[in-house]
Amino acid sequence: MTHRILLLPGDHIGPEIVAEADRLLRALSADFGLDAELEYAHLGGCAVDAEGDPFPATTRRLAESADAILLGAVGGPQWDDRPRDQRPETGLLKIRSTLGLFANLRPAMLFPELAAASSLRPEVVAGLDILIVRELVGGIYFGQPRGLRTRDDGVREGFNTLVYGADEIERIGHAAFQAAARRGGRLCSVDKANVLESSELWRGVMTDLAARYPQVELSHMYVDNAAMQLVRDPNQFDVIVTGNLFGDVLSDCAAMLTGSIGMLPSASLDDGGRGLYEPVHGSAPDIAGRGLANPLATLLSVAMMLRHSLDEAALADRVEQAVARVLADGYRTADLATDPARAADTRTMGQAVVNAL
Amino acid sequence: MTHRILLLPGDHIGPEIVAEADRLLRALSADFGLDAELEYAHLGGCAVDAEGDPFPATTRRLAESADAILLGAVGGPQWDDRPRDQRPETGLLKIRSTLGLFANLRPAMLFPELAAASSLRPEVVAGLDILIVRELVGGIYFGQPRGLRTRDDGVREGFNTLVYGADEIERIGHAAFQAAARRGGRLCSVDKANVLESSELWRGVMTDLAARYPQVELSHMYVDNAAMQLVRDPNQFDVIVTGNLFGDVLSDCAAMLTGSIGMLPSASLDDGGRGLYEPVHGSAPDIAGRGLANPLATLLSVAMMLRHSLDEAALADRVEQAVARVLADGYRTADLATDPARAADTRTMGQAVVNAL
Ligand SMILES: CC(C)[C@H](C(=O)O)[C@@H](O)C(=O)O
Ligand SMILES: CC(C)[C@H](C(=O)O)[C@@H](O)C(=O)O
Repeated sequence: MTHRILLLPGDHIGPEIVAEADRLLRALSADFGLDAELEYAHLGGCAVDAEGDPFPATTRRLAESADAILLGAVGGPQWDDRPRDQRPETGLLKIRSTLGLFANLRPAMLFPELAAASSLRPEVVAGLDILIVRELVGGIYFGQPRGLRTRDDGVREGFNTLVYGADEIERIGHAAFQAAARRGGRLCSVDKANVLESSELWRGVMTDLAARYPQVELSHMYVDNAAMQLVRDPNQFDVIVTGNLFGDVLSDCAAMLTGSIGMLPSASLDDGGRGLYEPVHGSAPDIAGRGLANPLATLLSVAMMLRHSLDEAALADRVEQAVARVLADGYRTADLATDPARAADTRTMGQAVVNAL
Repeated sequence: MTHRILLLPGDHIGPEIVAEADRLLRALSADFGLDAELEYAHLGGCAVDAEGDPFPATTRRLAESADAILLGAVGGPQWDDRPRDQRPETGLLKIRSTLGLFANLRPAMLFPELAAASSLRPEVVAGLDILIVRELVGGIYFGQPRGLRTRDDGVREGFNTLVYGADEIERIGHAAFQAAARRGGRLCSVDKANVLESSELWRGVMTDLAARYPQVELSHMYVDNAAMQLVRDPNQFDVIVTGNLFGDVLSDCAAMLTGSIGMLPSASLDDGGRGLYEPVHGSAPDIAGRGLANPLATLLSVAMMLRHSLDEAALADRVEQAVARVLADGYRTADLATDPARAADTRTMGQAVVNAL
């Protein structure tokens, strides 16, 4: 059965890194039996420019019928002053929400060859391998009511609602417990239950779920302490599960700990196996168009797609091994090179991975 | 004029570290002309146990008439299952809110003698000296409506409201711009304006304020990026200003970067110079009662109190110099000692600072 894969290059470095994913997918089709059909559409700033909407109807139709979606990155300063419904980020939030992509999996692992790129001491990050499971379609990102208004005393105020239903917490909880069961068997749920009622419910639901996963050891941590513990000793964690906003902050913090931010993939999954895959890093306007972008996070996102949405675990392994191989062979893009003058450009790196398949 | 100082030892290690602050304040009175009257009251878990309320009316009366307040730390596992209005944290939130202590100043600096205690590479944290200005009596910590309810479909949900008025943002903005003007002249305002309307207002108000502080350079950063940048290169920051929840997370992250968390003081100020001063670390139930607690964060909180509330800058300098001196002399409590067997206990450390005055 042909897999329908939708590619959304997005903005700035997005098209450059997605071009390498395209190259990889075509190589997997030509030589390794992947049966895939690639389609393209606009999301983010490029969609605003081309179609006046960061998540156009055409993109939506293609996304809804695709088996998996690969996103480069969206955003850039030229759209910052647009009204909210014409910003690149709004396109991203809408595709997540429309497709029900509630489970955001963000692995943060250290590639041993890149240990020197971490700002942490080598012994603190050695062997780092955490998975952050972030709820992606609820919480304060989507809660109603929200907006700007003028109070009775004439003062402007801005307001948002952080709301979680027990059903939403259970759903992401199951995803996280299952991920922990497949990994090290330890799950840390992060909340702010000492201050927030929404977190109180979160903690209660996670605690109840734990009874159904006896093989997983559940702990709880406040978000401020979690930020400290990530910096102090990240290796204490196996899987972290948390809400949309806390997950946004902690997953970026965890990614940066590794020093490998140009290397980290992510998956955003619905409850039926469809997913949107994207590198953790952003659209990097400062280096766009110059062949400086590191495509490895995008290629590793393709590996996650093969594993989680396309049921092609063997091909996923093959891609991951090819990436490990080019690193071992000394290929480094400019973000990671000790000698930038000898760095590989985006295309050279992408081709090296294809050659190493 | 006699300064009225209220001491709130709080829970677990709280009484041990506040005892050293008491010793210091008495020494300053006896030998260096400080005119102070010390009073004591309950806050937190000890107040629940003694008076059935984490912020009893007696404490409130004394706090309202004090010139400055020193808090040890509150909280502990024995109160975790109490209803929300009988938890230690509720006492802390109430005293902040009742006294209008909106400006939380949290310096995060590296003590050169303690560089080895940081999990970051020495070159990344060398010379680190950041100030985080956190809004402390608004935002999602106090926003209404909030609570737990059952939806029409029978599902439980928990909800909280993140709300900021332009007046609240201006007030903390002024405090932060003034702090930046006295320091390195750079202020970074942290928000999530790409997602939250409350942050959109926050960013707008900060931008407007900037015109009144031409000597300060204002920048903006999203909270997820701020968490990354703190880990990647904390020295890029001078002063950070942010809301209550983001400040909770980022200030703990920044404190941990230094590796000196047992050393960091904080101030929570109202608009008239009254303040509550407390160490950044918590009540550390695991080491309570054993003389293991590091009193230096508390003694440095006394220095902040002398400077910000009691107009005794010369005495503040004296205390800070005494702390620097004992560190240079090699005194280390167990949290920082390379050889724990030779560590100074809480009292020895406190007495050493008094001797070094
Ligand atoms: C761009 C932004 C809306 C988005 C988010 O906050 O979710 C990004 O930071 C992310 O983590 O994917
Ligand atoms: C104990 C808790 C309520 C408090 C907070 O979240 O403000 C603490 O974490 C702090 O930062 O002082």
